[in-house]
Order: sequence, then C-alpha cells, then structure tokens
Amino acid sequence: MAGKRSLTNAHLKSLLDHQDLESLERQLTPKTSPPAKHYLPHSTVSQRRVQRFWKGMGKAPHPDLLDDWTSANAESFDGNIENCIGSVKIPLGVAGPLRVNGLYAQGDYPLPLATSEAALVASYHRGACMISAAGGCTAMLLYQAVNRSPAFAFDSIISAGRFVVWAMESFEQFQEVANGTTNHGKLVDVGTTVEGNHVYLNFEFTTGDASGQNMVTIATQAVCDFIESNCPVTIKQLYVEGNLSGDKKASAQAYTSVRGRKVSAEVLIPAHILKKYVHTTPKQMTDYWKMSAIGGVLSGTMGVHGHFANGLAALYLATGQDAACVAESAIGVTRFELTDDGDLYASVSLPSVMVGTVGGGTGLPSQKASLELMGLYGSGHSGALAEVCAGLLLGGELSIIAALATGDFTRAHRKLAR
Amino acid sequence: MAGKRSLTNAHLKSLLDHQDLESLERQLTPKTSPPAKHYLPHSTVSQRRVQRFWKGMGKAPHPDLLDDWTSANAESFDGNIENCIGSVKIPLGVAGPLRVNGLYAQGDYPLPLATSEAALVASYHRGACMISAAGGCTAMLLYQAVNRSPAFAFDSIISAGRFVVWAMESFEQFQEVANGTTNHGKLVDVGTTVEGNHVYLNFEFTTGDASGQNMVTIATQAVCDFIESNCPVTIKQLYVEGNLSGDKKASAQAYTSVRGRKVSAEVLIPAHILKKYVHTTPKQMTDYWKMSAIGGVLSGTMGVHGHFANGLAALYLATGQDAACVAESAIGVTRFELTDDGDLYASVSLPSVMVGTVGGGTGLPSQKASLELMGLYGSGHSGALAEVCAGLLLGGELSIIAALATGDFTRAHRKLAR
Amino acid sequence: MAGKRSLTNAHLKSLLDHQDLESLERQLTPKTSPPAKHYLPHSTVSQRRVQRFWKGMGKAPHPDLLDDWTSANAESFDGNIENCIGSVKIPLGVAGPLRVNGLYAQGDYPLPLATSEAALVASYHRGACMISAAGGCTAMLLYQAVNRSPAFAFDSIISAGRFVVWAMESFEQFQEVANGTTNHGKLVDVGTTVEGNHVYLNFEFTTGDASGQNMVTIATQAVCDFIESNCPVTIKQLYVEGNLSGDKKASAQAYTSVRGRKVSAEVLIPAHILKKYVHTTPKQMTDYWKMSAIGGVLSGTMGVHGHFANGLAALYLATGQDAACVAESAIGVTRFELTDDGDLYASVSLPSVMVGTVGGGTGLPSQKASLELMGLYGSGHSGALAEVCAGLLLGGELSIIAALATGDFTRAHRKLAR
Amino acid sequence: MAGKRSLTNAHLKSLLDHQDLESLERQLTPKTSPPAKHYLPHSTVSQRRVQRFWKGMGKAPHPDLLDDWTSANAESFDGNIENCIGSVKIPLGVAGPLRVNGLYAQGDYPLPLATSEAALVASYHRGACMISAAGGCTAMLLYQAVNRSPAFAFDSIISAGRFVVWAMESFEQFQEVANGTTNHGKLVDVGTTVEGNHVYLNFEFTTGDASGQNMVTIATQAVCDFIESNCPVTIKQLYVEGNLSGDKKASAQAYTSVRGRKVSAEVLIPAHILKKYVHTTPKQMTDYWKMSAIGGVLSGTMGVHGHFANGLAALYLATGQDAACVAESAIGVTRFELTDDGDLYASVSLPSVMVGTVGGGTGLPSQKASLELMGLYGSGHSGALAEVCAGLLLGGELSIIAALATGDFTRAHRKLAR
Repeated sequence: MAGKRSLTNAHLKSLLDHQDLESLERQLTPKTSPPAKHYLPHSTVSQRRVQRFWKGMGKAPHPDLLDDWTSANAESFDGNIENCIGSVKIPLGVAGPLRVNGLYAQGDYPLPLATSEAALVASYHRGACMISAAGGCTAMLLYQAVNRSPAFAFDSIISAGRFVVWAMESFEQFQEVANGTTNHGKLVDVGTTVEGNHVYLNFEFTTGDASGQNMVTIATQAVCDFIESNCPVTIKQLYVEGNLSGDKKASAQAYTSVRGRKVSAEVLIPAHILKKYVHTTPKQMTDYWKMSAIGGVLSGTMGVHGHFANGLAALYLATGQDAACVAESAIGVTRFELTDDGDLYASVSLPSVMVGTVGGGTGLPSQKASLELMGLYGSGHSGALAEVCAGLLLGGELSIIAALATGDFTRAHRKLAR
Repeated sequence: MAGKRSLTNAHLKSLLDHQDLESLERQLTPKTSPPAKHYLPHSTVSQRRVQRFWKGMGKAPHPDLLDDWTSANAESFDGNIENCIGSVKIPLGVAGPLRVNGLYAQGDYPLPLATSEAALVASYHRGACMISAAGGCTAMLLYQAVNRSPAFAFDSIISAGRFVVWAMESFEQFQEVANGTTNHGKLVDVGTTVEGNHVYLNFEFTTGDASGQNMVTIATQAVCDFIESNCPVTIKQLYVEGNLSGDKKASAQAYTSVRGRKVSAEVLIPAHILKKYVHTTPKQMTDYWKMSAIGGVLSGTMGVHGHFANGLAALYLATGQDAACVAESAIGVTRFELTDDGDLYASVSLPSVMVGTVGGGTGLPSQKASLELMGLYGSGHSGALAEVCAGLLLGGELSIIAALATGDFTRAHRKLAR
Repeated sequence: MAGKRSLTNAHLKSLLDHQDLESLERQLTPKTSPPAKHYLPHSTVSQRRVQRFWKGMGKAPHPDLLDDWTSANAESFDGNIENCIGSVKIPLGVAGPLRVNGLYAQGDYPLPLATSEAALVASYHRGACMISAAGGCTAMLLYQAVNRSPAFAFDSIISAGRFVVWAMESFEQFQEVANGTTNHGKLVDVGTTVEGNHVYLNFEFTTGDASGQNMVTIATQAVCDFIESNCPVTIKQLYVEGNLSGDKKASAQAYTSVRGRKVSAEVLIPAHILKKYVHTTPKQMTDYWKMSAIGGVLSGTMGVHGHFANGLAALYLATGQDAACVAESAIGVTRFELTDDGDLYASVSLPSVMVGTVGGGTGLPSQKASLELMGLYGSGHSGALAEVCAGLLLGGELSIIAALATGDFTRAHRKLAR
Repeated sequence: MAGKRSLTNAHLKSLLDHQDLESLERQLTPKTSPPAKHYLPHSTVSQRRVQRFWKGMGKAPHPDLLDDWTSANAESFDGNIENCIGSVKIPLGVAGPLRVNGLYAQGDYPLPLATSEAALVASYHRGACMISAAGGCTAMLLYQAVNRSPAFAFDSIISAGRFVVWAMESFEQFQEVANGTTNHGKLVDVGTTVEGNHVYLNFEFTTGDASGQNMVTIATQAVCDFIESNCPVTIKQLYVEGNLSGDKKASAQAYTSVRGRKVSAEVLIPAHILKKYVHTTPKQMTDYWKMSAIGGVLSGTMGVHGHFANGLAALYLATGQDAACVAESAIGVTRFELTDDGDLYASVSLPSVMVGTVGGGTGLPSQKASLELMGLYGSGHSGALAEVCAGLLLGGELSIIAALATGDFTRAHRKLAR
C-alpha cells in the first residue's frame, strides 16, 4: 500500500492521463442500481445440479469447465465444493523417483506435481534424481499437532486471571469433551495467552492421518460450549478462534509453536554427483546460499529459503491438500554447508507442513490417484507424506540454488516457458 | 522444529514404543542400493508423450489423471509443465456476482473459485452477495510493479561503493537493455542495498497485463550480462536473484516495497443488510475484529487479516495464476469500523497481489474459460482482476468474521464438510 | 542499507561534490601505520586505578566525568565496569506517584526516570497521575523465566535425533547440575529445536529476584560441560548460546516463549478524568489507537504500541537494569477500548520485561537509591518492580496517545525541549 | 503473555500456595481511597527547584542522587528533564582506541562506554584492539534521513485517493513549509501508504548533525497545519504521527525505509591476529556465526547479529544519545566469511543508527565530555560518530563470537561479574 513519491506520481499520471478525477470518482462510487441476481446457492453436487447452476447463470456449460469426466464424476465432488459448475484442470507432471529414508517414508517415491509454471517439474526432477543418486535423503517427522485458539473477553484482567485458574483445573474435562467429538483427534496440550482482559487458549491436537482443520474446529467448539455452560466466571465474548492459531497465514510462532507436521530432511551430496547433475561445485552452492540467506533476512521473510512455495503448492494440489495452507506452510530454513571432505551438506526444515492422507480433498478421484501413485493414500501414511514433502523441497532447493549459482536459472525459464 | 519437553517426550514415546532406536536409525540411513530408474524427463506435452511417460513409469495411464478431455487437450499444456502424465481436477464453484466499483473493474462479476475445501465457496458467496446488495465495493489499484534483485559480491565495501556509483550512473543504459528484452515490461526504478561487501540491486518493472515473473527475470538477466561485460569494478560473484525480492515468500518489505499489484477495497454495509445476510450487528463484527487483530499480531503474522489465503488460492487456481504466489500474496490488512451511523465500514488492503490476464497458466483451456466467465481474459484486464480479487477477499472477510462472531463458523463446517 | 535511486543519488552527490572517488577510497583503505597504543585493560575499579587509566590515555581526568562523588565511590563500581574513567550523569526525574494494584505491587509508587529526553518525565507524570486518580491500575505478573539456548552440531540428523532422545532422558540430571550452580535459579523446562543436523536446547530458568542473565549462563555452561562429558553421541560443535534465546534482541518468539517477566496492566479511566487530565475523550483516544495500531503493523513491528522504549529505558537506567535489554523488552501490545458506559479501558501487555532487584547494576549507589525511593530494593521485590514497570508504561501510552490524539504532542516537545 | 500448561500451572501454584484467590483479587482491585498527592510538576531545573521537589516528596535529598556535582550542574539539565531530583551515575569505561577508516571518521578513536554490565567494556576493548591491529575497519555511512509519518482518515477510499493526488501536487509547498521551521533539516522525500480510507504520508528529512526527532516532529506539524488549512478534501482525523515511522521500535521496514543513519563496517582479520587476540581460528568463527545466524532467524529477530544492543546502549548513554532509540537501532546484520586465504572477513550493517553530535543530551556536561574525548562533539561530526558506532559494534561481534566459539563467554562473565 506504499509507494515513494516518484512511483506514486507515475501511477497517478497513468490514471489521470486517460480520465479526469471526476469521472474516476464516479466509477468508484457505490452503485445503487439493483445488482445482478445472486446465484442461488446450493451445496449438493450432482450432474443435474451443475447443469442447473449454469442455467441459473444464463449460460451454456463451458466444455472446458464441464467436460465429460467432470460431469460423470460430479457426485464425487459433493462435500468439497458449493455452487459447482465443473472443474479446473491443472497440468500434472511427475518428478523423481525420490529416495527417502525416513521414520515413516521408506523407498523410492514418484512425485506428482500439479502446476502451470514452466520449468517447475523439470527443476524438482533434477533435484530429486540427484538426491536419489546420493543414496536418498534422510527425513524426520519431528512433531505433529494442529492448534486452534479460542478467545475469551472479560470485564477485567482479574476475571481473566480467574478464568485461567479455572481452565487449568478443568483441562482433563476439556480433553474428555474434545476427544468425544472425534475418533482420530486428541487434545494433547493447551497454552494460555493473557492480554489485558482478553484470554486466548491455544489447544493442541493430534489429528491422526488427517490434516485436521475441521476436526480441531469441531472439537474446540465442543470445549467452548462446555466452557460457556460451566465456567463460573462471566465471559463477555467467546469465539472459537481468536486468530492466534496461525491458520492459513505465515506466522513467526510456527517455529516455537505447533501447526501441522514439523519435518526436517538432509542429504550429503558428493562433489562429483553435484557436478554431474547440476554442473556446479559445493563451494559455489554454499557461496550463493550464504548470500541468499542474508537477502531473505533483509527482505523480512520468516526463516530463510529459496522457493518452498513452488514444490509445496504443486504437491498440495496434486494430492488434494488445502492449497490455501501454502500460505502457512511455505516457511522454514534451508541450510547448505561445505563439508571438510569438500562435499555438500544440505538440509531443509519446515515447521508447519499441513498435510493429510485422509479427508479433505484427498478422496477426490484425481487427487486420490496421485496419492496412490505414491503409495500414500489413506490411513497410516500422513507421516510418510510429510517426510516425502520435505525431501521434495530439499530437491527443489538444490536444483534452484544450483541454477542461480551457475546462471542456468534464466536459461531454463527462457527455454521451458515458451 | 521446536517442541516443549512434554511434546518432545510424547513424540519420542510414540516412536520408540513401536521400534527400537537402532532399527529407526537403520531406516534413516542413506541406502546405497541403486535407486529406481529416473523418469526420462521431457518438456514437450502431447498425447503421445504423455502415454510414453506412463509407459516409462511401468504403469497404465490412470483414467482419473489421464481422462479424455485431458488427453485431447494435452498439447494445450505444452510450455506449462514437464513430465506430464495428465491433469488434476479441482472442483470449481461460482460465487456472487460481486459488484465492484473500481478504477479498472466496473460491474457485477461472477467469481470462479477452485477448491476442495467445503464451505469456502458458500462463505465467499454470502459475502459477495452482501457487498453487492450494499451497492458494491469500491476497489482501487494503488500501484503495480514486480521486482527482481540481482546480487553482487565484491572484495571489499570500497569496491561495493564504487559499484553503486557506477550503477547509478548507468541506470539509463540498464533501462535500455532491460526494455529491449520485452514489449510489455519496463524497468522503472532501482533500489540499492549495501551489506558489507555485498550489493543487492532491486529492479522494479511494470509488466503490462502479465504477472510478469519470467519477464522480469529475463530482463534482469540481460542487465546482469551487460553489467558483467561493462562494469569497471571487479565482481567476485553475480547472481540474477539474491533472494531480496520476496519472490514466493511472505515478506515484511511487501508493505513498503513493490511486488505485484497493491490494491485496497472498501464497503459500507448498513446494519439492516448485515442483519439480513449474516445475522449479526456492526458492533459484534468490530468486537471480533479487534480481538482477532490482536490475536494475529501476537502470533507474529505480517499484517492482520482472517483468511486471505482461502479466496486467493481459489481464485488463483481458477484463473491460471501461479498457486505458489499465494505464499507472498496472502498478507495484508483487514479493518472493520463501526460508523457514527451504526453501520459497518470494512476494508481490505493487499500489498502484493500477483495476478495477470495474459501468460503463465491463464491460457490453459479451463483457466481461460474461468477468466472469460468473468470477462477478464487477455490484454487490458489485469487491473480489473486485481480489483475483483480485493473485492472477493473483502467479501470473504465479512463472511468469516460474521461466522466467527456469531458461532456459525463451526456449524457451517460441520454441515458442508460431510 | 537500502535506498531508492533518488536517495542514493542524493547521497552520492553530497559525497562526490566535495571529494573525488579516489581520495574517498584512500580514506576507506585500512592503514598499516601502527595504531595508537591500546589502553592497558584493567578490571578492578578504584580511585587509583581510575587516575592511572587517565594517565595511560595521556590526559588529565575530566572533572565532569571524574567528579568528586564518582571518585569517592569508584570502588562501588568494581564488578560492573572495566577500564573505568568515571561516570556519566543522567538527569533523574520523578513521576507519579503511581498507584498499582498488583499481585506483588501494592500502593503508590514514585517513578524514578533517568533520561535526557525533554518531555518524557512530564508525559509519564501526567499519565501516572491520571491512573492514580482512577483508583490505580491493576497489574499482573503472568510468568517468569529466563532462557538460554545452547547449540549442538552433529554429523547428521540421525545423530541429532539420538541426542534429543538422550537429552530428554537426562533432563533430571541437567536440573541437578544446573541447580547446583546457583542458590536462586532453577532449571524448570527445556524445549528442543532440530534444524537438520543442528539441535538447539532452550533451557528455561527461574532466577529469583535477579534479572538473571549471568546466572543462567553459568548454569547452562555447567549443563553443557556435563553434556560434553557424558553424552554418548559425538558432538561436533557445542556452544553455550546458539542465539535462539532472543537475548538483547526484539524477537517474535517472546510472545510464545519465555524471557524475563511477562506482565499485563489495565485501567478503566472514566471520561471525566480523561477530560480533566489529558483534555480528550475516550472516543478520540480509541480512534487514534486504532489507526496507530495498523500503522505499527504496516511498519513491521512486533506487537503494537506507542513508545514502550521511552519509559522502559528511563526506568531501567534509574534502577540499574541492563539498558541493552531495552532492545528485547520494548515490545508488546497496547489496547484501548471504548466501554459501553463511554469510558476508556486501556491495557498494556509486555512479554519480556528483564528486571531484577538484586545483582547487576541494582547495587550501584545511585541506582540503589532509586530503587529504595520506590521501596523496591533487594530480595522479594522483582515481581513488584515488573508490575510497576507495566503500570508506568500504561501511563505513558495514555499520555502520549492523548497528546497525539489532540495535537499536544508537538506543542509539548516544542515547549519542553528548549 | 503465553505459557504452556505446565508453566501456567507452576506459576499458579506459586501464587495460590501463599494466598487464596479471594485475597489475591482484593489486591488487584482498584482502590478508591485517595491516592498519595501528586508531585507538583515543574520543568525548569535549578538547584533550588531540585531541593523543592525533594521537599515536595517529603524527603531529604539522597546524597547519591543529588551529589555535589549534580547540584552544581543542575541548571545544565534544564531542557532535558522535568521533576528533576538529581542524577544517576552510570559507570564509564573506555575501550580501544579503535582505528576507523571511514567516509567521515578517520583515525584512532577512544570508545567511551557507559554500562553497569560486567565484561562489556572488556569485550569491546579486545575487539577494538584487534581491529586496530588489523589496520582498522572500513566504515561507510550509506544514507541519512529521519522520517515521520502523519496519518489522515477520510470518509472513503475515494477521498483518500483525492487527498493523495493533492498531496503529490503540493509537495514543493510542503517542503517550503517544513524547511521554514528549521535551519538544519530538509524535507527530502515522501512516501504514501493507502489502507482503505486511511492515508499515511511518510516524510523523510535530513537533519544535519542532530539526531533530529524533535526537528522532524515540528516540521511535520507545520506541514500538517498547512494541510489542515489548505487541503480541499475533508479530513476526518489528522495525526502528526500515525505510528508508521518505526520511532523507538524495532521494525522490519528499517531495512527498506530510512530511519537515522545507515552504516556498514568491515574488517579483514588475518588468522594470526585472530589467534593472538581472541585465541581462535577463522573457521571456528564462521562455524559459530552460521549456527547463530540460523538461531536468530528461528527466534524471529529482525536481521541476524549477536549483541548490537550492548555496545549501542553503552555508547548512546556515554554520548548523550536517546537511550530509548536502542530499541530501534539494535537491529542489523553481522556477517563472517572465511576468505580463500584462510583469513576472516567480518562486517556489520545497521539500518537505523539514531545518533547526533548536537542537540538532545549531547550537550549535558559528562556526555559532552565523552564526545570531546572522541573529538566528535558538535557540528560536522555526526557522520563520523555513526561510522565509529558501526566499528564499535563490529569489534563487539568479533569479541563475543570468539568468546562463544571458544567457550570463553561463561568464563569471562564468571570472572568479571564478581
């Protein structure tokens, strides 16, 4: 929302050269003429309903949105979308296979990546192949929990304090209530934040193999209902989420708090493999890494990395994760070191990978097919998916940093984005 | 990557109860056995190539990934993906129409949203309808530019200083070189950052109606080549991007620097419309907003908002934007005020909306169809798309904050995410 | 380190108009001529040693640095300074008294403030008087702990993981070792951060009534020595502090982690008192607060407040706290609300107030006298000092926000900074 | 304000073991009994007035606060303090001399440091001596400006936009008005931030050799008065500072915006000098630096450094700078590199050093004496002071990182903090 004088002036000139101020202001003024009729909302998805929605918009179904496959599979979208008119087709490529030696992931994984950005799959592919050639990356799921932070307003900090005392005493009851709403989630801990007469509780849940956002919302709501009925202190306002959880937002607390799956991956790349796969040396890689780490710091990012968002978004889309979670997941630390033996040590650490292998969009047909391609659909696979995700990003960082360190970056984009 | 003792202990217990330390360590150790054969990379996309890639993986094409439409349209993916095996189908819903009174956007826009998150479209729909009923939102594109920040290492800060002097003198030549690489982009300004013997130049470009990331990379590379050939100061290292640009990362500098399109939207919602559409009062809305604003601040987010990422990701996916840019775009400020007349003033301001209406994924068939549905495909529409995007997020904030303020939030998720 | 082209050019012009590039570069080049002789360091402070240091510098003692009082009290500085040549005299004013109703602080406290900034004491004075007139502020010490975070490097994440397992098992021993180094501090918890093959342990200590930085360093060193001797995993590097503690730096983790004393204070100011003392209304105050809160967010600060640093620095200096800790302590949240009765609710919350009433500079004569003036010197008073500190800052925020809301801000500075 | 359940419970237990909830709540409740009489404020400082203030407090002057020197020099405090009762004596030590090869600083500077923290002067001393032995550091003032950001509220973003158009057109008049208020400051640029119907202007001033905060406030107020009288758009609220300037707060925008003096310093330390002075090797230093840089990033600090606040606070206090500015100045980047020749390259870069050599506290007797000791009192010296400041911090980082890399850190604190 900010611009220097020269930029502001340039922008104003570009506007005012074509129109005078008065006509611009007329444009900007709310129009009291009746708006176009709202689309009649409906949440069920079926072939018939989709057709009806197009009709409601006064249009014939567009064959690139409502293609045969989508039409035939419309009911599979039920529960994942409202006002459905079809589907968007995101190109899907495969990189790898990537060898992952993890606590949960074991073996060589194909990496399905959905994107429309040229060069992305190619870049992750060469990174993954290089890692595999080096014996695979080691990946470790460090923690797992999803939080939700209901907020409570009181008349005074005195009441806020009394509430905290009561809440601490009632924690076992909160657990009972929360755990009664779900077979897979468990309320495992709670933090308290007192800000004047406001209190935020920060509930932490394990969520089984689901990403778990709905699960923790429903469980937290149940606890809030219990609090409303039982708390001896008068609560002026109560909200199931006070925006302290970091939900769908990059937040600094991700490093010290818990949101999704924390995972770290590392690999040792011998100099000769580096040379063969990405035409560079460990020293060139660490030189660039150091400079880019400081660049990231100076720009005010959280953590230091190159392009976590690219691989994350592509894998999240391919496997039916919530694409909006890219906003919170795409933070972390990439670290490159030149070893005493002249090889390259590389690691990535991600504080908040929001993935699941059940629920959400994972059961949609094409997303499920992608997970199955990896062998990671369904219960028991979320830990492995998080570890593969870290390995994928490690490969991406290796590839892009090599590209930037050697000047290949522009060449690749010039060639592949025709 | 951090956990308290209790959480760490719980995590260790969950691991070590099932396996001993030694077998876990064996799992984690790199495996020297030959990895699975790499997929043979190819960048051209055609029906034949896609089939061949499946064969290379030793699998039959999966009908939910390689459906008839995708097979028939494979060539349209060329230049947007490598190693293509099909497409992922993301459910597409439509919200609105949303009335936008902007510098560029004028009228009632359908809002195509691609997502697999239940309740998302429904929530944006009710927000959009309410805004339209209030005469529409006012939206203003404030600035537009995309930056790239090449980095230069020298032997000393003395050389770094000499380089800055030379670069400032050479700026008109940089412009000439940069502008020669593109018909649509223009190098408009440059910032300099000196950190010891390192210098980052921060080039700012206008990019016409494209999102423009490739355009600015290619132009910056040309300037870097020019610098390499002409600079009288010895440059030890030169990189086309030093990670200062904020590319695909939430960064604090977005507020004071320039990245994509800066846009703000506002609406005045009379109390009676608020009541009708979202069953709440302006006072309830501003009460919650205040508490959630502080919650966001305490969690260490950049800016304060509810869920920009939800609407952004869904619109980006529907219209062929780069989904990874959600990471950098999903920051900004939502502000709600109770007016003296007892109505609700609401605004959103976004510092870095990365959208285009030409190039990237915008020309893919289904994405193009979504843009056409809005009437915003092709040249001359990027300003309007950015303004509609702001209006969409304004609607989303109104709807979700109403849901959280009234307790509907959980109910909606419980009902729609069946 | 960054400037736009216009600013850079202006700066270069101001330099190069007076000198050519070559002479500037000569200036900047390291000079191999022998440097001036180093001062002979000594750590003991006594009248004789101070005189000798002046002689070593080849100068007569300056009477404004080495005045009679300082000369006579030189030995009292022993253990707080090296290479002593005298003292700097910081003007000391008193504001208040401030009524504090705290868990620890009870009654009306004079507020000694050392500063050279005109208008500072006057501003805090009127804020304190207003709070007292309203019955005093309620203040609550929320938590107390100081952390230190030793860092450990391993050959691989596998070893890092083994180390974490061992460290968790050994925590009781760590406590024994740590607690053996101090009578006042206790190791109460530990967090672990794994980043690739690096591990940071985050030890949290209570520190009695001391600020406690040295205490926790010594205790942590003892634990590190124990680890070095006993850890079965090979540690490649070990450091007593890995820069994760936030020591003397504003850090986002202060809100979720523990550093010093967390304290919150609130007051309800009736409209008539607000009018009498600061000539404004609750509405004017909350209007400004809202705008300044967003301003703070947009500038990328941690938390939202006006000028915590002013009061903190002045109280820290007066009472012998570590002035460098202002960097980490001056973050937090100020919140103003218009109540349903038309009065003003105001609160401040500070996550990391680093204060003590024993040790450090608290025993220096004038600093001790300031603490005694408050009745807070020595054991048993640190909780009260933290609460008074919060009350002081609450008064300051009320006063400065009133000044900014009414336009008095400039007037006061114009009048008092003669 | 946040704690995990275990910490919260421990805290509650420590409270409730000694008192019951009801008595605690009584303590916390505002007391309507008349508060102690306010001190009668007065702003003039003279021997008589100081005595009178003690009498007003009902106390005899404390000889350690009101010593002879302070009594005799009371009038020199006039204009720097209100409600004066004496002075606080901060121990003053001298480190160095430090050789600085700067654009402005040239030669060997004694470094007066006021602190009560044991080991601080000793640590900076050894760093400074080592730098001098290596030929001195190169230091470069990069930019200079102080900003103030008045804020304006309008009825709509339409009016906000009109205001921006008008303000841009009126900038030369703003400059005339601003520059008329001061002989030393100049309004050099303005940025605009539009957030809904709010606008923040960000005025940038040069301030001569003063730190300049009052100067820019008064100049900005004059511009605001001009705006109020002349602006054709109806302004609902106008504030001279909207909290966007970063005044006395660590803010991320410091890196891309302008606040005080931006300065960078570097030195090349040959391995043998490093060994002689701090008993370590370039490799050990860079190993620690890398780990601590990531530690800083994970803790959510702005920039990466060790302990800028220590040296800054001590130099600011010694030389009459505003100690509260430590909060905004103590951010930046320290970078260590192992050179190809096996030596150590070290640099520090500080975005916002707030120093002056005229005005503020620089004219107080002991502070002036410290500046004179450096040869930097009065007009024409602020650039040199900023460069010496950077050199000082560079020495401090070298010394402390050496201490941490070798384990000397604890030993030094154990020995010197007796």
